[in-house]
Amino acid sequence: MEMLFRYNWQVRQEWLDWCKELPTVELERERTGGVGSILKTLNHIVDVEYSWICDLQGKPDQSELFQSADSLEQIAALSEHFRPEISEYVSAWKPEMEQQILQAVREDGSSEQYTYGEVMRHVIAHEIHHMGQMSVWSRELDKKPVSANLIRRGLA
Amino acid sequence: MEMLFRYNWQVRQEWLDWCKELPTVELERERTGGVGSILKTLNHIVDVEYSWICDLQGKPDQSELFQSADSLEQIAALSEHFRPEISEYVSAWKPEMEQQILQAVREDGSSEQYTYGEVMRHVIAHEIHHMGQMSVWSRELDKKPVSANLIRRGLA
Repeated sequence: MEMLFRYNWQVRQEWLDWCKELPTVELERERTGGVGSILKTLNHIVDVEYSWICDLQGKPDQSELFQSADSLEQIAALSEHFRPEISEYVSAWKPEMEQQILQAVREDGSSEQYTYGEVMRHVIAHEIHHMGQMSVWSRELDKKPVSANLIRRGLA
Repeated sequence: MEMLFRYNWQVRQEWLDWCKELPTVELERERTGGVGSILKTLNHIVDVEYSWICDLQGKPDQSELFQSADSLEQIAALSEHFRPEISEYVSAWKPEMEQQILQAVREDGSSEQYTYGEVMRHVIAHEIHHMGQMSVWSRELDKKPVSANLIRRGLA
Protein backbone atom coordinates (compact mmCIF):
# COMPACT_ATOMS: atom_id res chain seq x y z
CA MET A 1 0.00 0.00 0.00
CA GLU A 2 2.68 2.44 1.08
CA MET A 3 4.76 2.01 -2.08
CA LEU A 4 1.85 3.12 -4.26
CA PHE A 5 1.31 6.24 -2.14
CA ARG A 6 5.01 7.05 -2.35
CA TYR A 7 4.83 6.50 -6.11
CA ASN A 8 1.95 8.98 -6.36
CA TRP A 9 3.76 11.58 -4.29
CA GLN A 10 6.90 11.28 -6.41
CA VAL A 11 4.94 11.54 -9.65
CA ARG A 12 2.91 14.45 -8.26
CA GLN A 13 6.06 16.35 -7.36
CA GLU A 14 7.39 15.80 -10.88
CA TRP A 15 4.14 17.15 -12.36
CA LEU A 16 4.26 20.17 -10.03
CA ASP A 17 7.82 20.84 -11.23
CA TRP A 18 6.75 20.24 -14.86
CA CYS A 19 4.02 22.86 -14.38
CA LYS A 20 6.57 25.51 -13.44
CA GLU A 21 7.69 25.52 -17.08
CA LEU A 22 4.20 26.38 -18.29
CA PRO A 23 2.68 29.88 -18.45
CA THR A 24 -0.25 30.42 -16.07
CA VAL A 25 -2.67 30.74 -18.96
CA GLU A 26 -1.91 27.13 -19.94
CA LEU A 27 -2.24 25.92 -16.35
CA GLU A 28 -5.66 27.55 -16.11
CA ARG A 29 -6.93 26.75 -19.61
CA GLU A 30 -10.07 24.61 -19.65
CA ARG A 31 -9.30 21.23 -21.23
CA THR A 32 -11.33 18.25 -22.33
CA GLY A 33 -11.75 15.52 -19.69
CA GLY A 34 -10.80 15.30 -16.05
CA VAL A 35 -11.95 18.14 -13.85
CA GLY A 36 -11.03 20.77 -16.44
CA SER A 37 -7.74 22.59 -16.22
CA ILE A 38 -4.34 21.31 -15.13
CA LEU A 39 -4.52 23.38 -11.92
CA LYS A 40 -8.02 22.18 -11.08
CA THR A 41 -6.90 18.58 -11.61
CA LEU A 42 -3.87 18.93 -9.34
CA ASN A 43 -5.97 20.69 -6.70
CA HIS A 44 -8.59 17.94 -6.94
CA ILE A 45 -5.97 15.21 -6.51
CA VAL A 46 -4.56 16.75 -3.33
CA ASP A 47 -8.04 17.54 -1.97
CA VAL A 48 -9.46 14.07 -2.59
CA GLU A 49 -6.48 12.29 -1.06
CA TYR A 50 -6.58 14.37 2.10
CA SER A 51 -10.39 14.29 2.42
CA TRP A 52 -10.47 10.50 2.38
CA ILE A 53 -7.63 10.23 4.90
CA CYS A 54 -9.60 12.61 7.15
CA ASP A 55 -12.70 10.45 6.73
CA LEU A 56 -10.74 7.35 7.71
CA GLN A 57 -9.49 9.18 10.81
CA GLY A 58 -12.95 10.47 11.70
CA LYS A 59 -11.77 14.06 11.28
CA PRO A 60 -13.41 16.94 9.36
CA ASP A 61 -11.72 17.64 6.04
CA GLN A 62 -10.36 21.03 4.95
CA SER A 63 -12.22 21.40 1.66
CA GLU A 64 -12.54 25.17 2.07
CA LEU A 65 -8.74 25.48 1.83
CA PHE A 66 -8.84 23.73 -1.53
CA GLN A 67 -11.76 25.79 -2.78
CA SER A 68 -9.72 28.95 -2.40
CA ALA A 69 -6.43 27.54 -3.80
CA ASP A 70 -6.08 28.58 -7.41
CA SER A 71 -2.36 28.99 -8.05
CA LEU A 72 0.33 26.39 -8.57
CA GLU A 73 2.15 27.66 -5.48
CA GLN A 74 -0.94 27.35 -3.28
CA ILE A 75 -1.68 23.84 -4.49
CA ALA A 76 1.94 22.75 -4.02
CA ALA A 77 1.86 24.25 -0.53
CA LEU A 78 -1.31 22.35 0.41
CA SER A 79 0.18 19.14 -0.95
CA GLU A 80 3.28 19.65 1.16
CA HIS A 81 1.34 20.81 4.22
CA PHE A 82 -0.83 17.69 4.52
CA ARG A 83 1.87 15.20 3.48
CA PRO A 84 3.27 14.44 6.97
CA GLU A 85 -0.19 13.61 8.37
CA ILE A 86 -1.09 11.43 5.40
CA SER A 87 2.30 9.78 5.38
CA GLU A 88 2.01 8.99 9.07
CA TYR A 89 -1.42 7.42 8.52
CA VAL A 90 -0.20 5.35 5.58
CA SER A 91 2.93 4.20 7.44
CA ALA A 92 0.83 3.11 10.41
CA TRP A 93 -1.51 1.04 8.18
CA LYS A 94 -2.04 -2.49 9.51
CA PRO A 95 -3.62 -5.44 7.66
CA GLU A 96 -6.34 -5.63 10.33
CA MET A 97 -7.57 -2.17 9.23
CA GLU A 98 -8.57 -3.59 5.82
CA GLN A 99 -12.04 -4.66 6.89
CA GLN A 100 -12.88 -1.71 9.16
CA ILE A 101 -16.07 -0.03 7.96
CA LEU A 102 -16.40 3.61 6.99
CA GLN A 103 -19.95 4.92 7.15
CA ALA A 104 -20.58 7.50 4.47
CA VAL A 105 -23.54 9.58 3.35
CA ARG A 106 -24.44 9.90 -0.33
CA GLU A 107 -25.43 13.24 -1.84
CA ASP A 108 -29.08 12.18 -1.67
CA GLY A 109 -28.76 11.63 2.09
CA SER A 110 -28.80 7.83 1.99
CA SER A 111 -25.99 5.94 3.68
CA GLU A 112 -23.35 3.65 2.27
CA GLN A 113 -20.45 1.71 3.64
CA TYR A 114 -16.92 1.16 2.44
CA THR A 115 -14.11 -0.89 3.89
CA TYR A 116 -11.00 1.05 4.85
CA GLY A 117 -9.07 -1.19 2.45
CA GLU A 118 -11.11 -0.19 -0.57
CA VAL A 119 -10.94 3.49 0.34
CA MET A 120 -7.14 3.37 0.50
CA ARG A 121 -6.95 1.74 -2.94
CA HIS A 122 -9.57 4.15 -4.29
CA VAL A 123 -7.32 7.05 -3.26
CA ILE A 124 -4.32 5.44 -4.97
CA ALA A 125 -6.17 4.71 -8.21
CA HIS A 126 -7.77 8.18 -8.23
CA GLU A 127 -4.45 9.98 -8.49
CA ILE A 128 -2.95 7.62 -11.09
CA HIS A 129 -6.08 8.01 -13.23
CA HIS A 130 -5.89 11.80 -13.23
CA MET A 131 -2.16 11.73 -13.95
CA GLY A 132 -2.99 9.68 -17.04
CA GLN A 133 -5.25 12.53 -18.15
CA MET A 134 -2.45 15.02 -17.51
CA SER A 135 -0.19 13.01 -19.81
CA VAL A 136 -2.59 13.46 -22.76
CA TRP A 137 -2.81 17.21 -22.11
CA SER A 138 0.98 17.30 -21.94
CA ARG A 139 1.26 15.77 -25.42
CA GLU A 140 -1.36 18.19 -26.69
CA LEU A 141 0.98 20.94 -25.48
CA ASP A 142 3.78 19.18 -27.36
CA LYS A 143 5.62 18.56 -24.11
CA LYS A 144 7.02 15.29 -22.76
CA PRO A 145 4.87 14.06 -19.85
CA VAL A 146 6.25 12.90 -16.52
CA SER A 147 7.03 9.18 -16.63
CA ALA A 148 4.28 6.98 -15.23
CA ASN A 149 6.68 4.12 -14.62
CA LEU A 150 6.71 2.83 -11.06
CA ILE A 151 9.89 0.83 -11.63
CA ARG A 152 13.22 2.65 -11.74
CA ARG A 153 12.16 5.09 -9.01
CA GLY A 154 13.95 3.45 -6.12
CA LEU A 155 10.63 2.72 -4.40
CA ALA A 156 11.34 -0.91 -3.42
CA MET B 1 -2.63 -6.31 -4.29
CA GLU B 2 -5.36 -8.55 -5.61
CA MET B 3 -8.10 -5.93 -5.21
CA LEU B 4 -6.27 -3.52 -7.51
CA PHE B 5 -5.86 -6.21 -10.18
CA ARG B 6 -9.56 -7.04 -9.93
CA TYR B 7 -10.36 -3.35 -10.18
CA ASN B 8 -8.31 -3.10 -13.37
CA TRP B 9 -10.00 -6.13 -14.89
CA GLN B 10 -13.46 -4.80 -14.12
CA VAL B 11 -12.63 -1.36 -15.55
CA ARG B 12 -10.99 -2.96 -18.60
CA GLN B 13 -14.10 -5.03 -19.30
CA GLU B 14 -16.24 -1.90 -19.07
CA TRP B 15 -13.95 -0.13 -21.57
CA LEU B 16 -14.08 -3.12 -23.91
CA ASP B 17 -17.88 -2.99 -23.74
CA TRP B 18 -17.81 0.80 -24.19
CA CYS B 19 -15.71 0.31 -27.34
CA LYS B 20 -18.42 -1.87 -28.91
CA GLU B 21 -20.52 1.28 -29.31
CA LEU B 22 -17.82 2.98 -31.37
CA PRO B 23 -17.24 2.58 -35.10
CA THR B 24 -13.97 0.86 -36.00
CA VAL B 25 -12.62 4.03 -37.56
CA GLU B 26 -12.78 5.73 -34.13
CA LEU B 27 -11.16 2.77 -32.41
CA GLU B 28 -8.28 2.88 -34.89
CA ARG B 29 -7.93 6.66 -35.18
CA GLU B 30 -4.53 7.98 -34.07
CA ARG B 31 -4.94 10.17 -30.99
CA THR B 32 -2.68 12.45 -28.99
CA GLY B 33 -0.94 10.78 -26.05
CA GLY B 34 -0.72 7.20 -24.84
CA VAL B 35 0.37 4.67 -27.44
CA GLY B 36 -1.83 6.21 -30.12
CA SER B 37 -5.25 4.76 -30.86
CA ILE B 38 -7.82 3.31 -28.46
CA LEU B 39 -7.19 -0.19 -29.83
CA LYS B 40 -3.41 0.11 -29.56
CA THR B 41 -3.78 1.31 -25.96
CA LEU B 42 -6.03 -1.60 -24.97
CA ASN B 43 -3.71 -4.06 -26.72
CA HIS B 44 -0.71 -2.53 -24.95
CA ILE B 45 -2.41 -2.81 -21.54
CA VAL B 46 -3.14 -6.52 -21.98
CA ASP B 47 0.29 -7.21 -23.46
CA VAL B 48 2.24 -5.39 -20.74
CA GLU B 49 0.32 -7.04 -17.91
CA TYR B 50 0.85 -10.53 -19.28
CA SER B 51 4.50 -9.93 -20.23
CA TRP B 52 5.42 -8.89 -16.71
CA ILE B 53 3.58 -11.82 -15.16
CA CYS B 54 5.51 -14.10 -17.53
CA ASP B 55 8.78 -12.45 -16.48
CA LEU B 56 7.94 -13.00 -12.82
CA GLN B 57 7.24 -16.65 -13.57
CA GLY B 58 10.44 -17.04 -15.62
CA LYS B 59 8.40 -17.86 -18.73
CA PRO B 60 8.72 -16.45 -22.25
CA ASP B 61 6.03 -13.89 -23.05
CA GLN B 62 3.70 -14.06 -26.05
CA SER B 63 4.37 -10.67 -27.57
CA GLU B 64 3.93 -11.98 -31.12
CA LEU B 65 0.27 -12.69 -30.37
CA PHE B 66 -0.23 -9.06 -29.41
CA GLN B 67 1.68 -7.76 -32.42
CA SER B 68 -0.84 -9.42 -34.72
CA ALA B 69 -3.98 -8.48 -32.73
CA ASP B 70 -5.59 -5.44 -34.29
CA SER B 71 -9.33 -5.80 -33.74
CA LEU B 72 -11.40 -5.24 -30.61
CA GLU B 73 -12.49 -8.88 -30.69
CA GLN B 74 -8.90 -10.17 -30.86
CA ILE B 75 -7.76 -7.93 -28.01
CA ALA B 76 -10.75 -8.92 -25.85
CA ALA B 77 -10.01 -12.58 -26.62
CA LEU B 78 -6.35 -12.24 -25.57
CA SER B 79 -7.40 -10.45 -22.37
CA GLU B 80 -9.80 -13.28 -21.57
CA HIS B 81 -7.37 -16.00 -22.62
CA PHE B 82 -4.55 -14.96 -20.26
CA ARG B 83 -6.79 -13.96 -17.34
CA PRO B 84 -6.91 -17.35 -15.56
CA GLU B 85 -3.11 -17.66 -15.51
CA ILE B 86 -2.62 -14.09 -14.29
CA SER B 87 -5.42 -14.42 -11.77
CA GLU B 88 -3.89 -17.61 -10.39
CA TYR B 89 -0.52 -15.90 -10.03
CA VAL B 90 -2.04 -12.87 -8.30
CA SER B 91 -4.13 -15.03 -5.95
CA ALA B 92 -1.08 -17.04 -4.96
CA TRP B 93 0.91 -13.88 -4.13
CA LYS B 94 2.58 -14.07 -0.72
CA PRO B 95 4.21 -11.21 1.23
CA GLU B 96 7.54 -13.04 1.13
CA MET B 97 7.59 -12.65 -2.68
CA GLU B 98 7.85 -8.84 -2.29
CA GLN B 99 11.63 -8.76 -2.09
CA GLN B 100 12.40 -11.47 -4.65
CA ILE B 101 14.64 -10.06 -7.37
CA LEU B 102 13.84 -10.03 -11.08
CA GLN B 103 16.90 -9.72 -13.30
CA ALA B 104 16.12 -7.75 -16.43
CA VAL B 105 18.09 -6.55 -19.43
CA ARG B 106 17.77 -2.99 -20.70
CA GLU B 107 17.52 -2.23 -24.41
CA ASP B 108 21.20 -1.27 -24.43
CA GLY B 109 22.14 -4.71 -23.11
CA SER B 110 22.99 -3.63 -19.56
CA SER B 111 21.27 -5.36 -16.67
CA GLU B 112 18.92 -4.04 -14.03
CA GLN B 113 17.05 -5.48 -11.09
CA TYR B 114 13.55 -5.01 -9.80
CA THR B 115 11.83 -6.48 -6.79
CA TYR B 116 8.77 -8.60 -7.52
CA GLY B 117 6.78 -6.20 -5.33
CA GLU B 118 7.58 -3.16 -7.43
CA VAL B 119 6.87 -5.01 -10.66
CA MET B 120 3.41 -6.00 -9.44
CA ARG B 121 2.59 -2.39 -8.51
CA HIS B 122 4.09 -1.15 -11.78
CA VAL B 123 1.64 -3.39 -13.65
CA ILE B 124 -1.28 -2.06 -11.61
CA ALA B 125 -0.32 1.61 -12.08
CA HIS B 126 0.37 1.06 -15.79
CA GLU B 127 -3.21 0.09 -16.57
CA ILE B 128 -4.82 2.80 -14.43
CA HIS B 129 -2.62 5.42 -16.11
CA HIS B 130 -3.65 4.37 -19.61
CA MET B 131 -7.32 4.22 -18.61
CA GLY B 132 -6.99 7.84 -17.52
CA GLN B 133 -5.85 8.65 -21.06
CA MET B 134 -8.83 6.76 -22.47
CA SER B 135 -11.14 8.93 -20.37
CA VAL B 136 -9.86 12.11 -22.06
CA TRP B 137 -10.33 10.58 -25.51
CA SER B 138 -13.82 9.54 -24.47
CA ARG B 139 -14.74 13.14 -23.62
CA GLU B 140 -13.21 14.29 -26.91
CA LEU B 141 -15.67 11.89 -28.56
CA ASP B 142 -18.42 13.48 -26.47
CA LYS B 143 -19.05 10.18 -24.73
CA LYS B 144 -19.23 9.46 -21.00
CA PRO B 145 -16.11 7.54 -19.89
CA VAL B 146 -16.14 4.40 -17.77
CA SER B 147 -16.06 5.32 -14.07
CA ALA B 148 -12.59 5.20 -12.55
CA ASN B 149 -14.00 4.83 -9.03
CA LEU B 150 -12.71 1.84 -7.14
CA ILE B 151 -15.38 2.18 -4.46
CA ARG B 152 -18.93 1.03 -5.23
CA ARG B 153 -17.71 -1.92 -7.29
CA GLY B 154 -18.16 -4.63 -4.68
CA LEU B 155 -14.41 -5.27 -4.63
CA ALA B 156 -13.94 -5.41 -0.84
